[in-house]
Amino acid sequence: MNRRIVLAARPHGEPKSCDFRLEESPIPEPDDGEFVVRAEFLSVDPYMRGRMNDRASYADPVGIGDVMVGESVGRVIRSRNDRYAEGCCVSGMFGWQEYGLGNGEGIRRIDPDVAPVSTALHCLGMPGLTAYFGLHEVAALQPGETVACSGAAGAVGSVVGQLAKIHGCRVVGVAGTDDKVSYARETTGYDAAFNYRSTEDYEAAFRGMAPEGIDVYFDNVGGPISDAVYPLLKQNARVAICGQISQYNLTEVPQGPRLFWHLIVKRARVQGFLVFDYFPKFRDALQKMAGWYAEGRLTCEECVTDGIENAPTAFIKMLNGANTGKQLVRICPE
Amino acid sequence: MNRRIVLAARPHGEPKSCDFRLEESPIPEPDDGEFVVRAEFLSVDPYMRGRMNDRASYADPVGIGDVMVGESVGRVIRSRNDRYAEGCCVSGMFGWQEYGLGNGEGIRRIDPDVAPVSTALHCLGMPGLTAYFGLHEVAALQPGETVACSGAAGAVGSVVGQLAKIHGCRVVGVAGTDDKVSYARETTGYDAAFNYRSTEDYEAAFRGMAPEGIDVYFDNVGGPISDAVYPLLKQNARVAICGQISQYNLTEVPQGPRLFWHLIVKRARVQGFLVFDYFPKFRDALQKMAGWYAEGRLTCEECVTDGIENAPTAFIKMLNGANTGKQLVRICPE
Repeated sequence: MNRRIVLAARPHGEPKSCDFRLEESPIPEPDDGEFVVRAEFLSVDPYMRGRMNDRASYADPVGIGDVMVGESVGRVIRSRNDRYAEGCCVSGMFGWQEYGLGNGEGIRRIDPDVAPVSTALHCLGMPGLTAYFGLHEVAALQPGETVACSGAAGAVGSVVGQLAKIHGCRVVGVAGTDDKVSYARETTGYDAAFNYRSTEDYEAAFRGMAPEGIDVYFDNVGGPISDAVYPLLKQNARVAICGQISQYNLTEVPQGPRLFWHLIVKRARVQGFLVFDYFPKFRDALQKMAGWYAEGRLTCEECVTDGIENAPTAFIKMLNGANTGKQLVRICPE
Repeated sequence: MNRRIVLAARPHGEPKSCDFRLEESPIPEPDDGEFVVRAEFLSVDPYMRGRMNDRASYADPVGIGDVMVGESVGRVIRSRNDRYAEGCCVSGMFGWQEYGLGNGEGIRRIDPDVAPVSTALHCLGMPGLTAYFGLHEVAALQPGETVACSGAAGAVGSVVGQLAKIHGCRVVGVAGTDDKVSYARETTGYDAAFNYRSTEDYEAAFRGMAPEGIDVYFDNVGGPISDAVYPLLKQNARVAICGQISQYNLTEVPQGPRLFWHLIVKRARVQGFLVFDYFPKFRDALQKMAGWYAEGRLTCEECVTDGIENAPTAFIKMLNGANTGKQLVRICPE
């Protein structure tokens, strides 16, 4: 049988376990051109919170009773598609389930000799690409600049730190525990970082780490942490808005200081982005990143929860910042 | 004698007449390389409010007792500079006074045969250039797109409407009186506009004018009017932040809805700018704009107040939106 997690109810505010339901269904049968994948790792990501709402966004919501959306990596166990033979390793949007069905569309072939397959869900996958295109395309990062990043110890923020260093930049960050701060500084390239849960004056903390100001702000979080960055932007600064995780569980339109005046004073630019818009450039970027991985310059800690039945808990904890590095669910179907 | 307006006190909130003082001084004597200009028109502009604060911004504040900063246009009456002969017409940052001193730096020569000299302070001057570079450089406006503009009947907004039409765009706006709305629609190219003082639901009003959404938002105003635009941005929309006049008299950090989530959903970009950053391109832009002026495709209504002694009143009224088109002060020294 195929165990899977469906959306049972739309959360109001913070998602709860009862918003999800574990179901069993037969393992899918491939039609002509299709193949069945047995998942090994499932990625849980902040964007999934938005897909649980019944509200227009950049993608359609998950329907009640539908399998939760998500990317996983695993092996083809049955195939009626010549390009994906049994045994080959792939990643794709197979959803929160043990067995997924693919036809090649949106599928990426993973070479397990390059790196452990789970890296296809973090530093050599979507979070890594998000960091890459956010820094290089959206923010047009230049060597020697100062980068700030919120959510510095998350899957994306971990890569932001390392890519900024590879590009010859100074990089400072903010995270939510002392352990995360240590991880960011010791493992993922951050020159300095602070714990926002034990800091009162975020602006002073950023100023202390970047006394000459910030050229590029990579924003995963939004809210009061980001508010503190805008007064410190340098002339011609760029802000890449990747996520606003501090806002996702709010039930009212969040209010905060109006920040646009800073953009005039600094001639600064703020741009929101989705990694999928850079799809044609994924292959080149991944090739570069695999090279840095091989050289030991790119890594990401994994925070692993076992069993598809625990995916909702892993997801809820990730939204609350429990994970250091990439939150994964290891799936071991019989 | 030279009559001039100096900053008497830093305003708290809305400027008052007593924040200014009329003074008399001798008409300046030119040194070698200098010339004296008798002003004919002074421009009063929203940016001047920021210069009255004792606070770091993109330019230094005006000192207490110093002549208020501002651009005027007039004629050279005495010269010890061969490049600016007596009788020639120039514009420059001569300040709020009847007679100014120049040495050629930052001076633009005005040809009174091309257009009335006052146009050098609006559609063929800084406000016109602000509209031009905001639309073409900051927002990268494309033919066929839909533009929205706040402060549509002001000096900059008037030109935004006309340049957008010249570029083959649909343009909608918002202004603060029914007369301004009529002016925007009948004179400066707006396909539609609404009066925000008699409208409750700004978002519905924008949606009614631009049912398919907004590609480019040219923002002069900020605050609740701008808040209504963000949900209506189209994918890959661009926002050019020229001014935030709704905020300039506020004494507390203004609060409002957090808007950055919209930027992710729409992959939209917000950029603040200052027209002076485009200085090397001024000449080319003005040449084009003079051509459109000659063809009758570019104009701006003038709202004229007489006498340098009335400049403070004209400025305060402009900040409150009393002017349709460009607010000028006509100066007729003896």
